[in-house]
Amino acid sequence: MSGLENVLVVGTGLIGTSVALALRGQGVTVHLADRDPAAVRLARELGAGVEWAGERVDMAVIAVPPQVVAGQLAELQRAGAARFYTDVASVKALPLRQAAEIGCDLATYVAGHPLAGRERSGPAAARADLFLGRPWALCPTGKTSPDAVEALRLLIKLCGGEAVQVDAVEHDRAVAVVSHAPHVTASAVAARLAEAPAAALGLAGQGVRDVTRIAAGDPNLWTGILSGNALPVADVLEAVAADLAAAAASLRASAGPAAGNAPGAGDAPADPEAMGRVTELLRRGVTGTGRIPGKHGGPARAYATVQVIIGDRPGELARLFQVARDAGVNIEDVRLEHAPGLPLGAADLLVQPEAVPALSEALRAHGWRLP
Amino acid sequence: MSGLENVLVVGTGLIGTSVALALRGQGVTVHLADRDPAAVRLARELGAGVEWAGERVDMAVIAVPPQVVAGQLAELQRAGAARFYTDVASVKALPLRQAAEIGCDLATYVAGHPLAGRERSGPAAARADLFLGRPWALCPTGKTSPDAVEALRLLIKLCGGEAVQVDAVEHDRAVAVVSHAPHVTASAVAARLAEAPAAALGLAGQGVRDVTRIAAGDPNLWTGILSGNALPVADVLEAVAADLAAAAASLRASAGPAAGNAPGAGDAPADPEAMGRVTELLRRGVTGTGRIPGKHGGPARAYATVQVIIGDRPGELARLFQVARDAGVNIEDVRLEHAPGLPLGAADLLVQPEAVPALSEALRAHGWRLP
Repeated sequence: MSGLENVLVVGTGLIGTSVALALRGQGVTVHLADRDPAAVRLARELGAGVEWAGERVDMAVIAVPPQVVAGQLAELQRAGAARFYTDVASVKALPLRQAAEIGCDLATYVAGHPLAGRERSGPAAARADLFLGRPWALCPTGKTSPDAVEALRLLIKLCGGEAVQVDAVEHDRAVAVVSHAPHVTASAVAARLAEAPAAALGLAGQGVRDVTRIAAGDPNLWTGILSGNALPVADVLEAVAADLAAAAASLRASAGPAAGNAPGAGDAPADPEAMGRVTELLRRGVTGTGRIPGKHGGPARAYATVQVIIGDRPGELARLFQVARDAGVNIEDVRLEHAPGLPLGAADLLVQPEAVPALSEALRAHGWRLP
Repeated sequence: MSGLENVLVVGTGLIGTSVALALRGQGVTVHLADRDPAAVRLARELGAGVEWAGERVDMAVIAVPPQVVAGQLAELQRAGAARFYTDVASVKALPLRQAAEIGCDLATYVAGHPLAGRERSGPAAARADLFLGRPWALCPTGKTSPDAVEALRLLIKLCGGEAVQVDAVEHDRAVAVVSHAPHVTASAVAARLAEAPAAALGLAGQGVRDVTRIAAGDPNLWTGILSGNALPVADVLEAVAADLAAAAASLRASAGPAAGNAPGAGDAPADPEAMGRVTELLRRGVTGTGRIPGKHGGPARAYATVQVIIGDRPGELARLFQVARDAGVNIEDVRLEHAPGLPLGAADLLVQPEAVPALSEALRAHGWRLP
């Protein structure tokens, strides 16, 4: 393995085009192919590479739906398109099994999956930085050649991702828990919003927006993903459904028959233990959120926040960043609590903790209000 | 109703202290009370007001758990503490019913609920801007005096919130859908993370972080909220659980018996219609997310995004905002895809759609790279 000088991306959707853009940014020659000529043309115009004319490349990245990965792999291998092959599908056992069944060369193929996405799809939504700091699973088998693994590791590194080696079946169970079942659950919560009275939506806060954000994703694309990981996802969804049904039963039991249970439910008093079972579920949830690692696999980065009140005028943020620059402080991230139409909002400036005193002092000295 | 010159906040937790900070920022004299002297002292030191010594105020804001709102109201009314009373509890039918039962004066009390919160709780997490642009429900009854309603509307305005008048029972059904049931559902998803192998957590992306963020909230606080809205929440949770159980069954049916169903499940072939039912749930989810209004109750504001590649140097954003200012463009919001340690990131600049050409041209003219 001497490097990746040229790469072929087959399938110029969101993920394929983002891989292409990331590799181009690192000086790799990228060839593009898609069964839809318009998608290739758009990806090319976005600077993702050049149309593939059959050149042999170091690595082919198969960025097509999970069900058609193996067929695409076989076709490319027959054509001798690349030294090594990988894919980016969200499930891994299915393409590996199908590839074996149809007689693909399993030495040059290493299955992969970047854990990155957006609610939008297609090449126009692609971003060169989509994989920065994100996990990227790679699932070699006993038949995969070490050189193929090394090639994929290099590709992941060039894209800015964090390689996570994992068995394919283990991968599929993991993404059922951390991606696929959460997606369906978000859809089920959002489905309630579809049938709620309009007035109820007027009370929607940030919480429900966060819970349901991913439910805006493309239903057809997600049907393909879920279909390719059906049983592991079903296992998780059944567990979630059971917890929610139990919580509903506990809530009814806590209210007791007088609070509106169906007539004939008997005259049992409200169950004083019932809410304890709900609390227990909430506690398990807190434990679960605490196990999510920070962006780079370690604990979440400890930036400190400096909050400042800002006006709704052009240039307000420019002046603020200028003050930070003059104070020698790099603002790592900024979050605006901006209420259009209202005169004031607040900006949360995320900075290295040691920069807080200097920034706060500089902002105050220039007349900014820090709450 | 001539204004709110002085307000008493009873309960200096996250919401109470945030109300106090917001009112102080508008020049209102704020008195603070809490059964925990340390909480009052901390709120005072944060600039939220002065300790209450029994002065009569224009309005008392009762910021205690839902189950004890009515008792607190009765006590304050007996003491003649205020001309008007409101509360901020997340459920509204329960405190109104209890207040009637124990003989509170229902003319001077108007039930309220700001739809704002954080995963953190307590006075130290309070923010003066917590309510900016957020809905704030008010639930007058036939017995509420118009002056009390006017007083609460003024208080909401001073806090920067958006008043939404709604019947108490309707409110409780609405928040079951847009807040309480989503919270329990997020907990049930997060509970799966609590029991997952550590390797699975290494594959967690942004999606599951968003879905489970609110599940980090205080279980005891949320038990109180859910207990006060038990039956409406149970209704929603049962519907979510039923959708998830049906999705799980469809996924199993799509896989067919060969794919791992229990022995004895018969030799029925995989159900070709099954995934269609999953797609239908995903589609309902997309419809639901589309109904969530923008920050100010209207349709989501249609900002356009200009993406620009930025370097990781102090002053990079300052220069960028300066260019926007010089072009007469107001940047409404900014999102950084910032990968610490890497030389480049991307900034999404949200602007009025008509400002896109001017901003893009100005940025390019100053050497910025727009992907």
